[in-house]
Amino acid sequence: MITIKVMSLVIEPRVLKGFRDFLPSAEIERRGFVERVETVFRSFGFVPIDTPALEYAEVLLGKAGGETEKQVYRFNDNGGRDVALRFDLTVPFARFVAEHRADLPLPFKRYHIAKVWRGENTQRGRYREFTQCDFDCIGGDSAAADFEILLMMREALSAAGAPSITIHLNHRGLFNRFLSTIDASGKSIEILRAVDKLAKAGKEEVLKTLSTFLDDERSRKILDYVEAKGSWDETFYAMTSAAGSDNPDAERLKTLRDFMLDTGTQDIFKLNPSITRGLDYYTGLVFETFLNDMPSIGSVCSGGRYDNLTGLYSKEALSGVGSSIGLDRLLAALEALGRTAKRKTYADLAIICVDEKRGGLYQSMAGRFREAGIPCEVFFEAKKQSAQFALAESKGIGWALIPDLDSATSGGGSGSGAVILRNLALRQNSAELSIDNAILFLKKNLT
Amino acid sequence: MITIKVMSLVIEPRVLKGFRDFLPSAEIERRGFVERVETVFRSFGFVPIDTPALEYAEVLLGKAGGETEKQVYRFNDNGGRDVALRFDLTVPFARFVAEHRADLPLPFKRYHIAKVWRGENTQRGRYREFTQCDFDCIGGDSAAADFEILLMMREALSAAGAPSITIHLNHRGLFNRFLSTIDASGKSIEILRAVDKLAKAGKEEVLKTLSTFLDDERSRKILDYVEAKGSWDETFYAMTSAAGSDNPDAERLKTLRDFMLDTGTQDIFKLNPSITRGLDYYTGLVFETFLNDMPSIGSVCSGGRYDNLTGLYSKEALSGVGSSIGLDRLLAALEALGRTAKRKTYADLAIICVDEKRGGLYQSMAGRFREAGIPCEVFFEAKKQSAQFALAESKGIGWALIPDLDSATSGGGSGSGAVILRNLALRQNSAELSIDNAILFLKKNLT
Repeated sequence: MITIKVMSLVIEPRVLKGFRDFLPSAEIERRGFVERVETVFRSFGFVPIDTPALEYAEVLLGKAGGETEKQVYRFNDNGGRDVALRFDLTVPFARFVAEHRADLPLPFKRYHIAKVWRGENTQRGRYREFTQCDFDCIGGDSAAADFEILLMMREALSAAGAPSITIHLNHRGLFNRFLSTIDASGKSIEILRAVDKLAKAGKEEVLKTLSTFLDDERSRKILDYVEAKGSWDETFYAMTSAAGSDNPDAERLKTLRDFMLDTGTQDIFKLNPSITRGLDYYTGLVFETFLNDMPSIGSVCSGGRYDNLTGLYSKEALSGVGSSIGLDRLLAALEALGRTAKRKTYADLAIICVDEKRGGLYQSMAGRFREAGIPCEVFFEAKKQSAQFALAESKGIGWALIPDLDSATSGGGSGSGAVILRNLALRQNSAELSIDNAILFLKKNLT
Repeated sequence: MITIKVMSLVIEPRVLKGFRDFLPSAEIERRGFVERVETVFRSFGFVPIDTPALEYAEVLLGKAGGETEKQVYRFNDNGGRDVALRFDLTVPFARFVAEHRADLPLPFKRYHIAKVWRGENTQRGRYREFTQCDFDCIGGDSAAADFEILLMMREALSAAGAPSITIHLNHRGLFNRFLSTIDASGKSIEILRAVDKLAKAGKEEVLKTLSTFLDDERSRKILDYVEAKGSWDETFYAMTSAAGSDNPDAERLKTLRDFMLDTGTQDIFKLNPSITRGLDYYTGLVFETFLNDMPSIGSVCSGGRYDNLTGLYSKEALSGVGSSIGLDRLLAALEALGRTAKRKTYADLAIICVDEKRGGLYQSMAGRFREAGIPCEVFFEAKKQSAQFALAESKGIGWALIPDLDSATSGGGSGSGAVILRNLALRQNSAELSIDNAILFLKKNLT
């Protein structure tokens, strides 16, 4: 039991920079989003897991230092342990898989939606507490697994209300093969770093960067490789001409293309050889997702295939493919596009209080609507009806129920037990209705 | 972007003492629990909020020290701020209400289900990271609000699968009036502390404790007061005889009793004058909930009425009534009572892989089942059917679909496009079915 001593001095109520409260309308929207994507994940047989917010710093950070260290909330707990708040869901997943390997049938398909913490510079509009939404399939390397993740991205974003999307794909293995053919594998890290800036910095800038450590011919060949050529087939032909068509990586892209055609989903996919997704984690397919109506906001769902998830914690190499929805970014985009519904409540109906002694009866009445699937808030104070209507509207409730004024019980008194429903936006009252008919009436009128 | 340097040394994958991973079956159970109680909260018009996990230590702790300090995860962040992880959801709620007062129509009814952290002694079976599930109605002091919280406890616990419950009620105001009549108000903290141990320590022990600071007569009177007398009416009569019947606190209990009778819910409520619920926070009604099949596990849902939620952060006193479900304790009890369903997956069906080139078609087929509301996992590798059946069973999937071996497409080839459904537990195959009939067949057979 923890008790707080109330002081005479008032403490300023405020949150830390980069942290947020979620008021009901924002939280209803976020939960709706999560519920819709979860329904999709579950429909594909993906299962949820959860891990601690706080872990041994050694487990989360390995021996990493420098930039990572500065962003992580790390401290000594009261027992002197060196601990840190998780900064992503990938590292805890790797630790989880290594620890519980014997209990996980492979392929293991999991999703994890949870908060993470990074002490990032908030001036770039970043939050220090934000939600990640990851889904991965580990244990096996197949085109079918890659394709399933891509299909789930499409279904989840559609369920979340995202307008039309384009998923840009690339294959890191094929890119490495190409670098080999021009004898530039030794510089792959620097090259990836330069190419990653193509969309933002433009061709000239990338060429300039490449020229600082490569000759002009190879720099131009790289730029040529990473530029999209138009259609999937054209780009695929250009990539395999440069990197070789008769290898497993080209084959993988070809099989994925077949799966797209077989499912009629090819229109949302674009082969884009400039997609790199970071430097040393992904080894196969990589992908980013852009909203067609707002590509400038950046990728809202990204990921790829990796060949050794658990290397830090286990000698068994487990490969997999995974993706992550940028929930905060996507919600911001949907809001800017006017595609969010700002609901303040789940309740469709307010029960007006006419007589405070009837509090029990109002709850019984409300229970009838709740059982019929109509969420319903009961008002407690017998204020003027106009004040109660205004309260209902300020709470975002569309309908009010005015109980029978005469009857002593919901079914007795005047004998009618009738109620009146009021459409608060239209300021229109229904005729007198029995509870049963009021339920039918509302069900018909609620969209 | 945070990157982890992979070392040649393997780090032991482990979690901190008092922290837990949730494997799929445990997480599915927890999420199901949360979803069911949320549905109830929403049906009453309660809205969700969220607050940061990390706050200014000053905001969370006031100037508290001692015992509190030792249990809280408190540290300096990289910017030198004195911060702490929230240790409950009440303090952040108070801060939230003070900060956003202008945006909250009163009465404000909210729920908040989230993790909290306390560095407690894990030897008592306590966790250092656990989930709280709070619901409160603030802004107003009425019997109707008290009753609504009680009714929600009943509905939420029932929805969560709790077997029959008894909610024990007391009124702190009435107890204080009684202490006044025996001239013992000055010792109320010590008395509450002693009385709180009645259920655990027994009468003799409580009497002994009281006798250390009160004369025998008053000690016996207190013991007499806090002992339940049998029926609600008998106990109510004894309490009001001792404390006075003609006061707002007695009146409140009487009105609550009327509401219980009006809604036919009186059987689950018991007036219990020994319930105290901590020392200085609650001022009116207090309550605890016990499982009739396992009272020894303690209260699974407790709370009460308070008269100044926001005192630490604002000069406006906001009263309210709230309750909290002890999710971990309740789940442990339900498990011990055999009332939990250990599901390992949401998927009802596994699509067996016969030909890896058909990965796209299997997803199209799976899509038909998903659209029909049947979650469905696609298998990727064309292993022996018996191995795939075993994999499906190890994942907790009850049915397998064996695609038509002959047809080149789901609708072509042999012309039938027929599939076979296999009940994995019974090891029984269906006749050949069209996809439409397979959907109907499964819908009929899934309970």
